[in-house]
Amino acid sequence: MSTPWSRRFAHRTRTIKSSTIRELLKLTQNPEIISLAGGLPAPELFPVQQFKDACRQVLETKATAALQYGATEGYLPLREMIANNLQRYGIEACADNVLITTGSQQALDLVAKLLINEGDCVLVEAPTYLGALQAFNVFGAEYISVPIDHDGICTDLMPEAFQGGPKFMYLLPNFQNPGGVTMSLERRRQVVRFSNQHGIPIIEDDPYGQLRYSGEHVTPLFVLDRDNVNGDDHYHFGNVIYMSTFSKLLAPGLRLGWIVAPPDVISKLVQIKQGADLHTSTFTQVVAYEVAKDGFLDEHVKRIRAVYRERRDVMLDSLERFFPPEATWTHPDGGLFLWVTLPEGMDALELFHTALENKVAFVPGASFFPDETEGARFLRLNFSNSSPERITEGIRRLGVAVKAQLRTHHLVSTGV
Amino acid sequence: MSTPWSRRFAHRTRTIKSSTIRELLKLTQNPEIISLAGGLPAPELFPVQQFKDACRQVLETKATAALQYGATEGYLPLREMIANNLQRYGIEACADNVLITTGSQQALDLVAKLLINEGDCVLVEAPTYLGALQAFNVFGAEYISVPIDHDGICTDLMPEAFQGGPKFMYLLPNFQNPGGVTMSLERRRQVVRFSNQHGIPIIEDDPYGQLRYSGEHVTPLFVLDRDNVNGDDHYHFGNVIYMSTFSKLLAPGLRLGWIVAPPDVISKLVQIKQGADLHTSTFTQVVAYEVAKDGFLDEHVKRIRAVYRERRDVMLDSLERFFPPEATWTHPDGGLFLWVTLPEGMDALELFHTALENKVAFVPGASFFPDETEGARFLRLNFSNSSPERITEGIRRLGVAVKAQLRTHHLVSTGV
Repeated sequence: MSTPWSRRFAHRTRTIKSSTIRELLKLTQNPEIISLAGGLPAPELFPVQQFKDACRQVLETKATAALQYGATEGYLPLREMIANNLQRYGIEACADNVLITTGSQQALDLVAKLLINEGDCVLVEAPTYLGALQAFNVFGAEYISVPIDHDGICTDLMPEAFQGGPKFMYLLPNFQNPGGVTMSLERRRQVVRFSNQHGIPIIEDDPYGQLRYSGEHVTPLFVLDRDNVNGDDHYHFGNVIYMSTFSKLLAPGLRLGWIVAPPDVISKLVQIKQGADLHTSTFTQVVAYEVAKDGFLDEHVKRIRAVYRERRDVMLDSLERFFPPEATWTHPDGGLFLWVTLPEGMDALELFHTALENKVAFVPGASFFPDETEGARFLRLNFSNSSPERITEGIRRLGVAVKAQLRTHHLVSTGV
Repeated sequence: MSTPWSRRFAHRTRTIKSSTIRELLKLTQNPEIISLAGGLPAPELFPVQQFKDACRQVLETKATAALQYGATEGYLPLREMIANNLQRYGIEACADNVLITTGSQQALDLVAKLLINEGDCVLVEAPTYLGALQAFNVFGAEYISVPIDHDGICTDLMPEAFQGGPKFMYLLPNFQNPGGVTMSLERRRQVVRFSNQHGIPIIEDDPYGQLRYSGEHVTPLFVLDRDNVNGDDHYHFGNVIYMSTFSKLLAPGLRLGWIVAPPDVISKLVQIKQGADLHTSTFTQVVAYEVAKDGFLDEHVKRIRAVYRERRDVMLDSLERFFPPEATWTHPDGGLFLWVTLPEGMDALELFHTALENKVAFVPGASFFPDETEGARFLRLNFSNSSPERITEGIRRLGVAVKAQLRTHHLVSTGV
């Protein structure tokens, strides 16, 4: 007989399941399938030569520091560089405000460990990043969802949501994953005012902030929160924990993210991280610093923006061309994703299987909602990881599948 | 006013504090101080040239795989290599039994998340690895401690401990941190029998197993558990989750550890790890595989053993020479540490401060006990991270401090 392990698992494991995405993506390994599903950056943009030079340089001049145990807070020059870079976005921070994490997924896990008691409610956008739901679920989080529209979270619906007593808000203001929308400045101001009024802190997740292809930069919640201090003696500043990552700027395989927060929050997060993985790989931290330190990152981000802007435009054009008029989609100013809404009555999971037969894949929307039934009509499409040619062909194939499903459901007869 | 963050922290944070070691080590940064405190490997043994070659090779031939997102389970060739290497120790495993973790600290965190409900008791050796206590505390673990002697955990005291209903046992059979002792084969057999009888699984933590300098290899608990299947139809095999790390064999800065467990346990751990950090750095995994794959690791481990064996012997000789006869210490057959017992009435924390004045540092024993008051008379000494000359001089200085404290306490007048 073998040991009945599952009976020994902790209660919290009942809330954990493999994400639908993960299971579905296994079906998309076939290279004939054009996958618009994952959230992968374009590998052809990885700065391989810079990594080669940096590895050689690091191992010749500071191998001991790069290979030995390091501080839980992270590699000091990297933390200083991140703090400096943030200042151009108005985020005033020094190294003491910065904790390096093992990807921004760990940032979510650490923040959840810090804040969530079993049964605590988290206010999230609907849809929201499914990795955050996974990180929060394991600590017994419940959710209050607030819908988004083209200007981000619907702030007019938030007062009602606050009646549910959320512990904190988790928000993605820039080119939201999966929605692709950006929160307007007016709404950001409103969200920050709410945070102060109700004493409900904000987790501002900003993995894509630097990847803007059109429109104007919008001030981060973190900055709006600080600005308020000057205008109001009763304002409690420091309501925002900000997080970002190198995954989309350099390479996700490094697993390097960071949290920016007041020092008392960082200090408690450091204690939590000690027990979680002691520290993030010193080697990848020192190498990333070496690659980024002399301004290379700025040049590199410009290249990424140019490539992704073209891919976004190709996807938008292809959607106009190949999708039926009953479907609508967001027009993201940046990031990696756009979000398609199918007509009422259609089912994205059913479409997924038809699409696979047509050799194209996407992510059905359900995984991005705490209540998966809310997501039946939505699809997330990624434009960063495929060439313009494959995007065009992928959207053409997907359009065929959408129209076929529309006809099956007798929802429409328009289109080609 | 600034936001009162600490009021928002989850209940579990009250059990988390920075380790005493961490705070004390900050006092030992002065290069004039000989530190026998940390648990660092010897940096002069890091295979820097091999890392340089591996980084170049990886970035020339498989940069995309190494820099892109990877599977949560880990890099398949690395998992296969680990499974193969384990077979020489009799551990039958294939890649499906292996999960790569972000250092073995994460292995502890994931296992804790998997198994511990708030208030669950964990049976631990006293003393035990403090990183495990940190990982378990955050999930609300309570402890049942069983003392160790020179043959490892005192199995005659375990039946009494089982009356407390522990959820699992956490054991370090080889060259235990901090005790330096190795569990005898007879006791291992007894522990595995207990595990089956009482239905209490075992976490076998083996970071140093390959670093043996004297004596004969002793069969792992994982193997003894499997062997039992053949003898007894009622035996529940698969009671043991085994974990280890590359931190002491290659370099801790990579943050690469692993868990070996039955597939249903691995599968649940993978789901938990997805939410924790998505996956361990693909770059460090691919580089470590490249360094280790063609047998280099075996040669390298032989070099480490030779160097650490000498350092252990020098430390043991120096203790004989400079320590008063009232103190006793363990004689480890491997690993990185030995454990000193001071006479009744002496206080290791007080000694720590006297020792610092004498420019030598160690770790006071309290941190290694769930009940810190049990650890007052003990010190942990590390011999891997200092040259033989510094070990001799460090133990000489420490001997002076110990004798001074003995005299202060009127406990003795022997010695020089």
